[in-house]
Amino acid sequence: MTDCKAFGALEARGDLVPLTIDRRDLRGDDVAIAIAYCGVCHSDLHIAHNDWGNAVFPCVPGHEIVGHVTAIGADVTAFRVGDRVAVGALVDSCQQCDACAEHEEPFCAAGPTPTYNGKDRIDGAPTHGGYAEAIVVRDKFVLKVPDALDMRFAGPLLCAGITVWTPLRQYKVGKGSKVAVAGLGGLGHMAVKLAAALGAEVTVITSSASKADDARALGASDVLLANDPKAMMAAANRFDLIVDTIPSRHDLNPYLMMLARNGALALVGAIEPLEPMHGGLLMRNHRSISGSLMGGIAATQDLLDFCAEHQVLPDCEMIGIADINTAFERMQKNDVKYRFVIDMASIREAAAT
Amino acid sequence: MTDCKAFGALEARGDLVPLTIDRRDLRGDDVAIAIAYCGVCHSDLHIAHNDWGNAVFPCVPGHEIVGHVTAIGADVTAFRVGDRVAVGALVDSCQQCDACAEHEEPFCAAGPTPTYNGKDRIDGAPTHGGYAEAIVVRDKFVLKVPDALDMRFAGPLLCAGITVWTPLRQYKVGKGSKVAVAGLGGLGHMAVKLAAALGAEVTVITSSASKADDARALGASDVLLANDPKAMMAAANRFDLIVDTIPSRHDLNPYLMMLARNGALALVGAIEPLEPMHGGLLMRNHRSISGSLMGGIAATQDLLDFCAEHQVLPDCEMIGIADINTAFERMQKNDVKYRFVIDMASIREAAAT
Repeated sequence: MTDCKAFGALEARGDLVPLTIDRRDLRGDDVAIAIAYCGVCHSDLHIAHNDWGNAVFPCVPGHEIVGHVTAIGADVTAFRVGDRVAVGALVDSCQQCDACAEHEEPFCAAGPTPTYNGKDRIDGAPTHGGYAEAIVVRDKFVLKVPDALDMRFAGPLLCAGITVWTPLRQYKVGKGSKVAVAGLGGLGHMAVKLAAALGAEVTVITSSASKADDARALGASDVLLANDPKAMMAAANRFDLIVDTIPSRHDLNPYLMMLARNGALALVGAIEPLEPMHGGLLMRNHRSISGSLMGGIAATQDLLDFCAEHQVLPDCEMIGIADINTAFERMQKNDVKYRFVIDMASIREAAAT
Repeated sequence: MTDCKAFGALEARGDLVPLTIDRRDLRGDDVAIAIAYCGVCHSDLHIAHNDWGNAVFPCVPGHEIVGHVTAIGADVTAFRVGDRVAVGALVDSCQQCDACAEHEEPFCAAGPTPTYNGKDRIDGAPTHGGYAEAIVVRDKFVLKVPDALDMRFAGPLLCAGITVWTPLRQYKVGKGSKVAVAGLGGLGHMAVKLAAALGAEVTVITSSASKADDARALGASDVLLANDPKAMMAAANRFDLIVDTIPSRHDLNPYLMMLARNGALALVGAIEPLEPMHGGLLMRNHRSISGSLMGGIAATQDLLDFCAEHQVLPDCEMIGIADINTAFERMQKNDVKYRFVIDMASIREAAAT
C-alpha cells in the first residue's frame, strides 16, 4: 500500500478536505499513474453531496484523470513508465459478459466498477477517484493520450466528451448531418465542437439568449431560443439528431417535433422523470429517443484519437485543488465555461496546509 | 363517375347507414377494384366519431381492403382484370420527396393521401374507403394478394399487420430474438403471430389474466401480467424488443426496465401523452423508444408475401355490413377476437333495405 495525498468529502455536503488515502500495491495487470490533471464533473458534486443516496464516505471524486505512468505490473505490455495516459469513469468490469465482449463496459452485466464510490472487484476496497496525486488502475481501463493532445484539456473528454461522442457515432453524424444540441454546459459545448468537427451543421437550442455568441464561437451555425415558440415551430422536422444535454426535468415534445424523418433524440443529461411525452410525435416521422451512458473504453480511445487529430479541445478553466469547494459552488450556478480542470501540481502544497 | 353502394356516417357519432357515393372514371394509372372483404380498424370508429376533430362527412371508412380488379387504366401494366388485390390506409403520395423515394410513403413530405377522409391529389374530391362495393385507386398503391393467401384474412394485414411488421423488420427480429408484445388486441395478436413466425421467443404482457391461454395459442411461449409487479421486476433486462400496442395513456417505465442492452420499445398504439418517463431508464442499457406508423407499400407487399409463405393469418370474425354498428360497439368494449372483417357480398342486400 502507498500513502496518497487526496481531496475528499468526509460526509454528505461537507467541504472537500485534504485526506491521505491508500493506493494498492501493483497487481500483475495494474498501471500506477501520477495524476497531472483531473476534470470536475457534475457527478463529482452529486456523489459528494450524496444526492443519489448511494455515496460512501470518505469519498474522493474525480473521473476525468490525465497523467503519466510511474510503474507497471509484471504482466502489463501495453504501457511503459512515462507514457501519457488517462482514466475515465470506469476502472474495471467483469470482462466476461456480452457487453464487455462488445466493448460496452458501461453496461457490464455484472455492473462495472466506477472510478470512485465503487468497490474493487478483487479486494473489495472502496475506489477513490482522481482528486489525488496518484491512482492505480487495471491496464484494460487505461487510455493512451496521443502526443498531439494537450494533456491539460484531455480530462473533460473522458466523461463529458465520451457521453456526447457515443450518440454522435451511433447515429453516424458526418458531413450533411443536421444536429441540434439542447443545453450548452459541459456536455453541450463538447457536443457542438465534436459535431462540427465531424462535418455536421450544428444548431444550439438554449433558453439563454446570452449564450448565442458563445454557441457560434464553439462552432454552431444557428441558435434557437427554447422559449421562443415561433422559432421552435419553424424548426419542425429539421434535425437528424438532437443531443439533449439538459440535466433536469423538461418537456421533450417541442424537441421531438423538430426531428426529421427517422430522426433521433439522444438523452444524455436528464436521469429523472420527464414531462409527459406525446406518443403521436414519435410515430409521426418515425422518430426515436434513446438514452446513452458514457461509452466503452475502445470508443473513448477513438474519441481521444479524433480530438488529437482534429484538435478538438474542451474549453476549460484551470484551478488549484484548494479551489475545489468554490468550483463546486460555481458549477451549481452554471458559472463555468465549460469545465473546471484541477491542475494536480497544486495538491502537494494544498495538502500540506 | 360510377355510382357505388357504400356504408358511411353522415355526422359524428351517427350510425353508419347505406349511402351511394361516386367512384371516379379511370385515369391512366387507375385500377378499379370490386371489394370482397374489408377489415374493421379502430381508426374507422375514431374517424366516424370524429374523435380526432378532422372528420369530413359523409364519411365512408375502411382501409383494409381486399378484392378483384375489374378494370384498369390505359397505362397500367402491373395489374390485369381478375387479379387478387388489396389496398391499405394510403391511396396516393407525392412520389417526389425523399420519403416516397425510400418507400416510406406514410411519411411523404407533402402528406400522403389517406384511403378515406382525405382529398384526392388531382381533383380534390373526398376519398372514401372500403365499406363499399368498389374503389378506384392509383396503381402504385395497389398490392398483390398472393395465391396462397386466403382473401378473407388478408384485410387486417393491411393496417394492423403492417403496423407491427414495421418494427419487427426494423429491429431485425429473427431466431433467438426475445420479443414482448404489450397489449393483446388487433395489433397485438398480429405482433405475436408474426414475431413467432420470424422465429422469435415471444412473451405477451397483458393486464388480463384471462388472455393467457389465448396468448399461448397465438404463439407466445410466456405471459406476463402487467399488474403483477413481482413478475414484471423478474423480467428486468430481458427483451430485445417490446412492441407496445397499448392504445391509451400508460406508464412506459415498467416496460423500459424490461429491455435488455440496446433494446427498443416500439410504440405503435398510443398517440396521446404518456406518463412521465424516467430518463435514467433509457440511459441504463442504452435503451430506446421509437414510434412507427403503418409502413410503406413495398413493406406491405413484403408482409403479404411473408404471410402467404408462412400461412400467418389474423384471427377474424366475419360480419355482414349491416352488422357494422354493432361491431363498432363491440370493438369499443374490446369484444372481438381479434379483428372484424366485413364480407362485402352483404352490401347489395343491406344497401337495398
